[in-house]
Amino acid sequence: MKLIRFGEVGKEKPGVQLPNGNRIDVSIFGEDYTEQFFETDGIERLKKWLKDNESKCASVSEDVRLGSPICRPSKLVCIGLNYAKHAAEAGMKVPSEPVLFFKSTTAIVGPNDNVVIPKGSTKTDWEVELAVVIGKKASYISKEEVYNHIAGYVLHNDVSERAFQIEREGQWCKGKGCDTFAPLGPFLATTDEIKNPNNLHLWLKLNGETMQDSSTSDFIFNIEESISYISQFMTLLPGDVISTGTPFGVGLGLKPPLYLKPGDVMELGIEGLGVSKQNVVAYSGK
Amino acid sequence: MKLIRFGEVGKEKPGVQLPNGNRIDVSIFGEDYTEQFFETDGIERLKKWLKDNESKCASVSEDVRLGSPICRPSKLVCIGLNYAKHAAEAGMKVPSEPVLFFKSTTAIVGPNDNVVIPKGSTKTDWEVELAVVIGKKASYISKEEVYNHIAGYVLHNDVSERAFQIEREGQWCKGKGCDTFAPLGPFLATTDEIKNPNNLHLWLKLNGETMQDSSTSDFIFNIEESISYISQFMTLLPGDVISTGTPFGVGLGLKPPLYLKPGDVMELGIEGLGVSKQNVVAYSGK
Repeated sequence: MKLIRFGEVGKEKPGVQLPNGNRIDVSIFGEDYTEQFFETDGIERLKKWLKDNESKCASVSEDVRLGSPICRPSKLVCIGLNYAKHAAEAGMKVPSEPVLFFKSTTAIVGPNDNVVIPKGSTKTDWEVELAVVIGKKASYISKEEVYNHIAGYVLHNDVSERAFQIEREGQWCKGKGCDTFAPLGPFLATTDEIKNPNNLHLWLKLNGETMQDSSTSDFIFNIEESISYISQFMTLLPGDVISTGTPFGVGLGLKPPLYLKPGDVMELGIEGLGVSKQNVVAYSGK
Repeated sequence: MKLIRFGEVGKEKPGVQLPNGNRIDVSIFGEDYTEQFFETDGIERLKKWLKDNESKCASVSEDVRLGSPICRPSKLVCIGLNYAKHAAEAGMKVPSEPVLFFKSTTAIVGPNDNVVIPKGSTKTDWEVELAVVIGKKASYISKEEVYNHIAGYVLHNDVSERAFQIEREGQWCKGKGCDTFAPLGPFLATTDEIKNPNNLHLWLKLNGETMQDSSTSDFIFNIEESISYISQFMTLLPGDVISTGTPFGVGLGLKPPLYLKPGDVMELGIEGLGVSKQNVVAYSGK
């Protein structure tokens, strides 16, 4: 099943993208895709409910805005340097165990929303990533238990400001959590749709030119290792999003480096998880 | 006004600690201390409501457990190395701008709950800190605007596992977000109660012995500078907690270093923000 959320910013409604590509509004199911939804086996309950009620659901027009396919999670944890060639292009060594950092959840936007270059930024960069959505609370879980704790997968652009991240006194979170820096979606694909998350093609194009083109089979730490590892340091809650790192081909790694500017267009995709597209705009606030 | 939350873990009710020290249950006001409460001027509304309704509120017994005085925030952001003598004892240089990191919000517990030494930990340490609770959404705010965005202040023990934080491949969040690593409270003191947050005495005792004894007047970056700074990198939401760093006197800085063990007792306090006390216990799960 593919879960979507659609509508105005902050007023998104839950929906489902059907196998034929049509989208339906499942508001009358009565629940949004929150921590509680995942915690109470919402995916299975919704699946059953749809069998009897699909025909009662209104269709969602093609041109309606998509939001993040899940409500704001308790956290958005990322794995850094999880592809060897990317670690090399970033000028960093391959880590001996996963590198973790947080993105502020206020960075989350819909898959096709604008990405805003923050005030004072000169080094805003792209990162296509496979993100995992937690389905069941996870604390000190083994690698073997990981798949019992996953609700599904989602496409994520881990937008990053490299000067804020690397040149502004330690700790990467400064360059990772700016508003609009986490486009999620178009949909959450439940686990039955993704046979092997450790072998998915993923890519990103900037203004039509392919910049990243790789496979999650190049992970240094695969999904089982990564999620089990994180759960040794903190409790993961239903709905939490874990982003698994980006492959080779970010702007930081080019010679000379190339960063985003207003008017740029990013398109990205992962096998089985759809495609998203963001226009890059300048900050226009105060 | 002093806001408290009390009752069983996960079933806390909102309350108020009166100037005479008595605690009352304000459940009948109909709101918990959530993002929405702060966003909709809840403190002022509750204050007015209490004028007419205080006598209808049940009293809360002395021996009831206190929870975190605010509901789970969207984020718990911390400033690192914000006191010069602490930076020195940690063997790190005084930062030229604030160092930021996140704690997982799953680390939040009540002020007198047990602190659990995580599985595999050998270097769990204490850190008394002044934390700020955001009252109004803050993005790119100036130093002059900061106090308009603060709801109040709360005592925080930024419990930290030093091996996880420093020795396990970069990014401090690994040693900061373990379960029970963020005791908050006993109460949130609203801004009218704290005349100058940049001049508060704070202290921590381990097993009755004073380990930290300092003043927020030793901040490298004061409240105005810190909150304005963070708001340049991410949007702060009502209810978000910003912890402002710890002074000299943590276990890491002792020669030889001293870390927490089961049976230890931490007591800590800040002028105007009360006292909390945590027993240290071993992890007893699977």
